[in-house]
Amino acid sequence: MKLFNKEDIESLESRFRANFVNSLCGYKALQLVGTKNKNGLTNLSIINSAHHLGANPPLMGYIQRPHTVEKHAYENILETKFYTFSNVIEEYKEKAHQTSAKYPREISEFDSCGFEIAQTENGTPYVGSATLVMELELRSTYEIKENSTILVVGQIQSVLVDDKFIFDDGTIDLPGLGSLAGTGLTGYSKVEKMTRYGYAKPNESLKKL
Amino acid sequence: MKLFNKEDIESLESRFRANFVNSLCGYKALQLVGTKNKNGLTNLSIINSAHHLGANPPLMGYIQRPHTVEKHAYENILETKFYTFSNVIEEYKEKAHQTSAKYPREISEFDSCGFEIAQTENGTPYVGSATLVMELELRSTYEIKENSTILVVGQIQSVLVDDKFIFDDGTIDLPGLGSLAGTGLTGYSKVEKMTRYGYAKPNESLKKL
Repeated sequence: MKLFNKEDIESLESRFRANFVNSLCGYKALQLVGTKNKNGLTNLSIINSAHHLGANPPLMGYIQRPHTVEKHAYENILETKFYTFSNVIEEYKEKAHQTSAKYPREISEFDSCGFEIAQTENGTPYVGSATLVMELELRSTYEIKENSTILVVGQIQSVLVDDKFIFDDGTIDLPGLGSLAGTGLTGYSKVEKMTRYGYAKPNESLKKL
Repeated sequence: MKLFNKEDIESLESRFRANFVNSLCGYKALQLVGTKNKNGLTNLSIINSAHHLGANPPLMGYIQRPHTVEKHAYENILETKFYTFSNVIEEYKEKAHQTSAKYPREISEFDSCGFEIAQTENGTPYVGSATLVMELELRSTYEIKENSTILVVGQIQSVLVDDKFIFDDGTIDLPGLGSLAGTGLTGYSKVEKMTRYGYAKPNESLKKL
């Protein structure tokens, strides 16, 4: 095992450090954020920072970088309040990564990266071939003062999923749906069938579900 | 595909809804949080909400639930400012899940769940057999007003990893290290070898790394 201390991490070359530190938190959830602006121009961008905030009400957060020149998705969310998350699957992982390129504002990544577009009842765009989709409505934003990133908090409005991939206890079979896991800024992986354990109690053996 | 609208989600039985909504964000990073209180009593708890906040300075967040009766790890972090994240691997996934049981304050999960204890130069405990470990220092906390959860922000102080699992560009080979991915509150999965793509640019073919 090699120890990287604070000074070692600081002295890493900047792109190497970005990849290294982005890998440290473990696997990342991958989402394609679908939005449109008030004129109906759609946008699709991959993010890897979505995280659960609560089940009741159903809330999800993601992190918006401050210094990204292009942040069309976030601007659209502020404008219309609605956005979708579509999962990333093997079939379109390369196209999903391509959405991270800095396309001009007037170009929709649905077109330029070749995604089939579908829309929710509210008219919010999502990836037609995704196997897990949800629509969110913006609730609030929090600035992280340490580095001026923004925590964007949304409430889940609806979920679209084949219910044969929902276990008896409500857990969704993400590997069954083909959802991929991310590593850092570059990596995409398939995930194996899961082992599930029941609610843990002191001095009781765990129950496999 | 089945559509769950807002009312459908609200009307789910509460434990089912917790498992369902917890699965929606996609795979979760899994961390065993190692802490001790000012008297040296150690604590180890699994969390599934760690997320990257920035690379320079290297910052990571995790979400602390408000209504958890037991929140010894968080109390220790507030008391000593230091904590560690150890990754969760196949070898001890069952013991890792068992740390989520509500042990009394005076019981260390290192002992009760059978983990080999090691400590950083600052004396913060971590899992001796983990393959990726980092120490963090508390920077600040943010209350999410929608549901009174707390975003806990820490700065990475040091990282312990075998450097043969670091790719040339700085990305860490998490599947190679044996890190598992989580689903919802119950699922643990191995992750397959990753495909890596280079920085995406408009109108250029993606480069596989």
